[in-house]
Amino acid sequence: MWKDLITIYAPLRPDYEIQQKAQAHCDALLKPLGSLGVLEEIAVRLAGIYGTTTPVIGKKSVIVMAADNGVTDEGVASAPKEFTAIQTRHIVKGVTGVAVLAAQNGADLRVVDIGIDGDLQVEGLVHEKIRYGTGNLLREEAMSKDEVCRAIMVGIRQVQILKHQGYTLLGAGEMGIGNTTTSSAIAHALLPGIPVEQLVGKGAGLTQDAYIHKVKVIEDAVRYHGILEEDALTVLQKVGGLDIAGMVGCYIGACHYGLPIVIDGVISMAAAFIAWKLVPETAAYMFASHCSMEPAYRAMAQAMGLKPVLMLNMRLGEGSGCPLMFSVMESACAVLNTMATFADVDTCDDFLVDNRGDLKNV
Amino acid sequence: MWKDLITIYAPLRPDYEIQQKAQAHCDALLKPLGSLGVLEEIAVRLAGIYGTTTPVIGKKSVIVMAADNGVTDEGVASAPKEFTAIQTRHIVKGVTGVAVLAAQNGADLRVVDIGIDGDLQVEGLVHEKIRYGTGNLLREEAMSKDEVCRAIMVGIRQVQILKHQGYTLLGAGEMGIGNTTTSSAIAHALLPGIPVEQLVGKGAGLTQDAYIHKVKVIEDAVRYHGILEEDALTVLQKVGGLDIAGMVGCYIGACHYGLPIVIDGVISMAAAFIAWKLVPETAAYMFASHCSMEPAYRAMAQAMGLKPVLMLNMRLGEGSGCPLMFSVMESACAVLNTMATFADVDTCDDFLVDNRGDLKNV
Repeated sequence: MWKDLITIYAPLRPDYEIQQKAQAHCDALLKPLGSLGVLEEIAVRLAGIYGTTTPVIGKKSVIVMAADNGVTDEGVASAPKEFTAIQTRHIVKGVTGVAVLAAQNGADLRVVDIGIDGDLQVEGLVHEKIRYGTGNLLREEAMSKDEVCRAIMVGIRQVQILKHQGYTLLGAGEMGIGNTTTSSAIAHALLPGIPVEQLVGKGAGLTQDAYIHKVKVIEDAVRYHGILEEDALTVLQKVGGLDIAGMVGCYIGACHYGLPIVIDGVISMAAAFIAWKLVPETAAYMFASHCSMEPAYRAMAQAMGLKPVLMLNMRLGEGSGCPLMFSVMESACAVLNTMATFADVDTCDDFLVDNRGDLKNV
Repeated sequence: MWKDLITIYAPLRPDYEIQQKAQAHCDALLKPLGSLGVLEEIAVRLAGIYGTTTPVIGKKSVIVMAADNGVTDEGVASAPKEFTAIQTRHIVKGVTGVAVLAAQNGADLRVVDIGIDGDLQVEGLVHEKIRYGTGNLLREEAMSKDEVCRAIMVGIRQVQILKHQGYTLLGAGEMGIGNTTTSSAIAHALLPGIPVEQLVGKGAGLTQDAYIHKVKVIEDAVRYHGILEEDALTVLQKVGGLDIAGMVGCYIGACHYGLPIVIDGVISMAAAFIAWKLVPETAAYMFASHCSMEPAYRAMAQAMGLKPVLMLNMRLGEGSGCPLMFSVMESACAVLNTMATFADVDTCDDFLVDNRGDLKNV
């Protein structure tokens, strides 16, 4: 199933020639070369993705994948498992962090139940449940090979739908108690050179004892499944989550449908990391937003060469960093599209009337 | 004159009680405690400054102080001095980096000729010239004691005018060829523990030889004036610039009129640093935006305990980082004002219909 999927949803590549033209225009703008830094890089990358030297961002949406994780049975999370359903409902209702930030920054939300352990009824929620939460990764595979592929397909399908609805910029977020554990397990399995203590953080608010326990659960799980240095799809299947698998699909879909996609925090980054391992071309469509407090975020971002632009010490998840980044990306486009160039200046009439005569006709 | 000025424009302080109330509301929001990080800090600070637990940002403006620096005679800048006037004109015309970013983020500009070496005629420019550029700080005092106070007054007056026009959020930017040299000289004089090479950067684009020369000019100037560890006003007068003095006035004015004010890059930061040394209460009204590439920025920000939130490798100046920060601050207010609290959730009806019955009435 995986081979079929990856053949059908083959990667696109940004238009390199248009990117070069956009870079040349950027270099001609009325400013010291490269002095708008990452804003210039973003604008040029968007030019290549959209296939135009005057990239304009239109409709924006954050895709929120909601799912439960069996590993919460091990007491690795600071909140009870039921919060996945409760908080997902509130995201759809528009009153959580990501919902408020999306509204403030002109973005929509698409909230998907890809594996909540319960049947959540709330208007607007997209129902794509693969199963009622994953298995407990410490004692069994989180999901089957079939399930992981179906979950990835759910993500790809969301991008397809949003593309057809005219969306031009996406973000990938999640809701799932226990998912900093699954993300850290993924990072640990795929970054075997880094000690696990340097990858695991305190999630949304663990005590020191609970933290030590969480580190042990992650180490034990990766050892139990024998997945140190395994391929990314197997790692995702055995110790990942349905939310992460769904987001992997979002990144693969964004690369297939040619849409830029913003990474949120560590869980969104774990999905991006897997997508990149599976389909390296996806990286060209990814944009890091804020730098998560979770150490695994930094390790994976560094491995991918991604540099987040917002330092906000956020650790909420939900996709909450994406709308802030959307706004930065819109500013980047404005720079490329509306700043004057040095050539424009050359045609200006004289405008200085200097008392001492030395500044005329500059 | 200085004593009169600082007596008349005495500092306000944010309302600590309201800040506490805003923090309590923030802690009650539907999210793990503190998980929106710096967004929460910003919102709480704005609550204290505006004196309301529901802070809303209205009209926003970037004040751009334009002035020439005599030290350009020493060949310390990559662009010719005439660019101060040329670029100031283009800022007013709305086609430069800060102008485009301000428009994109719903902010206005107030561009002030506080010391351009020439008479620039362009509609919309505010004329408050103190003198036609400063003296060459390597060989003479940049300005007189009277001039530095008058320049600070210009800054205070701009804030007063904007306050009366209903602006609620300001930014401080500048245009002045040679002003990374004046800023680095200020940092060097006021941070004597740090080697000058660790403070000086390559400005908007210096070669290595020009960089070495610039370091020497700064060292020689500070030694010539004997201002290592001098008081901040004297340092500003002897090696600063009129643009910096004007921005010092903006920060002092913001603190007197109770308006939040955003710091841009290294020059804006040098002014903030001096304002803070002169009137420590100003810090409560300051917000760092992006982290400048210039090393002196980091040294001064660290000394003040300020943490920029945007990592964009920008080195344009003009106040270009301010509009991006305005947008982040608006998002911060949205979080505080429109997210639901846990108490709101408690009153929710049951909404889960779980097949297995274990999630009802959560």
